[in-house]
Amino acid sequence: MEVFKTVAGYRTWRNSLPANRTVGFAPTMGALHAGHMRLVEVARKLADETVVSIFVNPLQFGPAEDFSRYPRPFETDSALCRAAGVSAIFAPEPGDFYPSDFSTHCDVDGLDQHLCGASRPDHFRGVCTVVLKLFNIIQPQVACFGQKDIQQALILRRMVEDLSLNLDFQIVETVRESSGLAMSSRNAYLSDDEKMRATAIYKGLTQAKAAWAQGEKDATVLKRIIRASIDAAQPTRVDYVEAVSQARLAPIDRVEGPSVLAAAVYFGKTRLIDNLLLN
Amino acid sequence: MEVFKTVAGYRTWRNSLPANRTVGFAPTMGALHAGHMRLVEVARKLADETVVSIFVNPLQFGPAEDFSRYPRPFETDSALCRAAGVSAIFAPEPGDFYPSDFSTHCDVDGLDQHLCGASRPDHFRGVCTVVLKLFNIIQPQVACFGQKDIQQALILRRMVEDLSLNLDFQIVETVRESSGLAMSSRNAYLSDDEKMRATAIYKGLTQAKAAWAQGEKDATVLKRIIRASIDAAQPTRVDYVEAVSQARLAPIDRVEGPSVLAAAVYFGKTRLIDNLLLN
Repeated sequence: MEVFKTVAGYRTWRNSLPANRTVGFAPTMGALHAGHMRLVEVARKLADETVVSIFVNPLQFGPAEDFSRYPRPFETDSALCRAAGVSAIFAPEPGDFYPSDFSTHCDVDGLDQHLCGASRPDHFRGVCTVVLKLFNIIQPQVACFGQKDIQQALILRRMVEDLSLNLDFQIVETVRESSGLAMSSRNAYLSDDEKMRATAIYKGLTQAKAAWAQGEKDATVLKRIIRASIDAAQPTRVDYVEAVSQARLAPIDRVEGPSVLAAAVYFGKTRLIDNLLLN
Repeated sequence: MEVFKTVAGYRTWRNSLPANRTVGFAPTMGALHAGHMRLVEVARKLADETVVSIFVNPLQFGPAEDFSRYPRPFETDSALCRAAGVSAIFAPEPGDFYPSDFSTHCDVDGLDQHLCGASRPDHFRGVCTVVLKLFNIIQPQVACFGQKDIQQALILRRMVEDLSLNLDFQIVETVRESSGLAMSSRNAYLSDDEKMRATAIYKGLTQAKAAWAQGEKDATVLKRIIRASIDAAQPTRVDYVEAVSQARLAPIDRVEGPSVLAAAVYFGKTRLIDNLLLN
């Protein structure tokens, strides 16, 4: 497995691949868990070579967020990638990746107004910009993103379509602990007690989805079901519990077309998100 | 010569080229003149295949600008390209290129505050977005832009660097009529009298550059020289006469590092721009 810290180093390797060899790509911020490894698995299945980027992207963190304390266990990540058959890791230095006169950004308008976009201004601009730049560097034929970050995935998919990026955009199902808790690098921040209580998010989403499958289409009722489960677990704060359409990521009253039930909840200082798709 | 109206059609052709065959690209809005053909010439010299896009990009026109009356002489353009040895024209339909739910834009911050950016809000956002999308479609190794639109060229060059687009970005010297008037598709709007008077822009720029070469570094003095030449030609309106640094495209008091002398002037309803680089 190759490890590249510079764009030039990666490019030399990329250009050395035979022209018909395809690259599958999983962009990550490191602190890899089974969710990331599932992205790697899908990338490996769909392409000849698998590339993982590990880069804690400063552009997507707000000033009060956890950029500096975000975990960076590079040796462990690297070992996991090697064991999973990854061909190359791209792990640039922030100062090299974003020179001091960096001035460009990319935005998808409209889809960032609700859910995480409402409480994390400029977050998705940072995500779009880094992913666009990574695509230009990595040159993948397949790119894999986790469904856990559904707003991110749907915004990026729109960006890929709008900008005619020629790649197969995969949204990969959320991987969960046996408790149901969605895998997240931020789970490492949780105490055992918080981790147990946090399972209420998925429980609530599952109960609401079951009610929806049995005919309940009123968003207020479905959100109340989710909220009841979360509230019973005594969260520190509920950021949102929402039902949105997949097309516009905007709140809906009736859950009828392709939709998302989503929640963002704080346990202690840790903000956790999860969602289920209704199709 | 191939002519493609759809992304899919172009892609099939692009993918059929041998992997080591390079593509040189000149993006245009059509109404081709000798300035565009010079871009084609440079592209041909630097790459194996030459692609010209012809697309009057609605995103880069303001509501009061000349989008609908912009000339679209496709047959003449096509004949010029064929004669110049162009391999393929990409001329998409606006509705196909920008589907109704198109939501993505790209911006270069800072460089769009002065010169044309000041009087054409959102113009460079439209330019960055269309060029980024065209790059993703055309997949060029070389891209050629005219120096006449210097702010556009420097903004796009920054975008290319910031987003790690892997291409050779060429800024090609302005081609002029024998009168000195910079070639522009918008010259077609001018009456003979306006066309003659408009030569005052280049004359003023040339006089100021000569004064600078002889030691005059005061921007106010240099701008006064340009302005005197333009005013004597009785323009309808002067949008700007400016001295800016090449790095920041912001006004400077002393013209010492790499700089630009630039002007935008209306003759009748026609807005003309021109510039000279001081290095």
